[in-house]
Amino acid sequence: MYDGIVQDLIDEFGRLPGIGPKSAQRITFHILQTPNFDVSRLSELLHDVREKVRFCEVCGNVSEQERCAICRDPRRDQTLICVVEDAKDVAAIERTREFRGLYHVLGGSISPIAGIGPDDLRIAQLMQRLADGTVQEVILATNPNLEGEATATYLSRLLTSLQISVTRLASGLPVGGDLEYADEVTLGRAFEGRRSV
Amino acid sequence: MYDGIVQDLIDEFGRLPGIGPKSAQRITFHILQTPNFDVSRLSELLHDVREKVRFCEVCGNVSEQERCAICRDPRRDQTLICVVEDAKDVAAIERTREFRGLYHVLGGSISPIAGIGPDDLRIAQLMQRLADGTVQEVILATNPNLEGEATATYLSRLLTSLQISVTRLASGLPVGGDLEYADEVTLGRAFEGRRSV
Repeated sequence: MYDGIVQDLIDEFGRLPGIGPKSAQRITFHILQTPNFDVSRLSELLHDVREKVRFCEVCGNVSEQERCAICRDPRRDQTLICVVEDAKDVAAIERTREFRGLYHVLGGSISPIAGIGPDDLRIAQLMQRLADGTVQEVILATNPNLEGEATATYLSRLLTSLQISVTRLASGLPVGGDLEYADEVTLGRAFEGRRSV
Repeated sequence: MYDGIVQDLIDEFGRLPGIGPKSAQRITFHILQTPNFDVSRLSELLHDVREKVRFCEVCGNVSEQERCAICRDPRRDQTLICVVEDAKDVAAIERTREFRGLYHVLGGSISPIAGIGPDDLRIAQLMQRLADGTVQEVILATNPNLEGEATATYLSRLLTSLQISVTRLASGLPVGGDLEYADEVTLGRAFEGRRSV
């Protein structure tokens, strides 16, 4: 629809997740029509992220060094590991400021449909971290969906042989939510996990 | 929340229109985690778009040359000019394949609130194009909102002195739409513009 390069950039933005053709067009025109838009900064950051960012060799979180900022922080509780599927989940949990332990990023979840088995996840590295007996609790914070539950079940079975307490994040009604609009499964879980007040 | 560069790239994507913090994070991780994502291509295109793309000196559409592909095309009807607010509107109309004339991009619409008056738009250039008498019809295809209507009204008054027919795109029910869900103004316009069948 457009002359060469403009359409090329629209197509390139359209390849990014969550950006449809209309958004891609809007972004491209924003870049074209905003005189002080800094294309150099954006393209330098793209290269920097690609060249300098790696994954922490201990926990698998994103990092600019061999070990990520959380693994390097001596104030974090070394006896507690929270297992998540993705590095994005680390950021989500960090935002709560509720958790002061360490993380372990699996790099996905067990999904027979997508052909992802336990060997495709960073499970061996997790077992290695647990081997020296420092860790006393493993919190399974995989997603509350089919794949996440399967992964949590698999891990909890694997960890029973160790002298480590294994916990799972609570399922229930979202705070600020409305009982009327909760789905049956979530409401069922909320009943199941009810606590005395 | 993240180490330096990753957060910088998230922030940079978050500055683009229509991309919120969550989307920006998702895009950044996509770039991080997709081994064959071509950052060089994206950053080259960003620079190319900035350096090589300009606006057609005749109609104001995007172009890699002095005159855009539409203005250069001798098969387009030189007697017909469709006036639009933005270069994105040219692409929208081209997709219909209904219009074979030329365009004139105003570069916005009259908006006293935003401080945009007639002199801020490419109206003088339009008058210049109409001066030699080639053009026989001007189609006002500004948006069917307050600013677009004001701009169309302003232009139609300006053009009455010339021997040129001035038309406006039809307002009415969108095709595939539902009468029940049409707003009053649109439904009113649909009655007003009714045609014998």
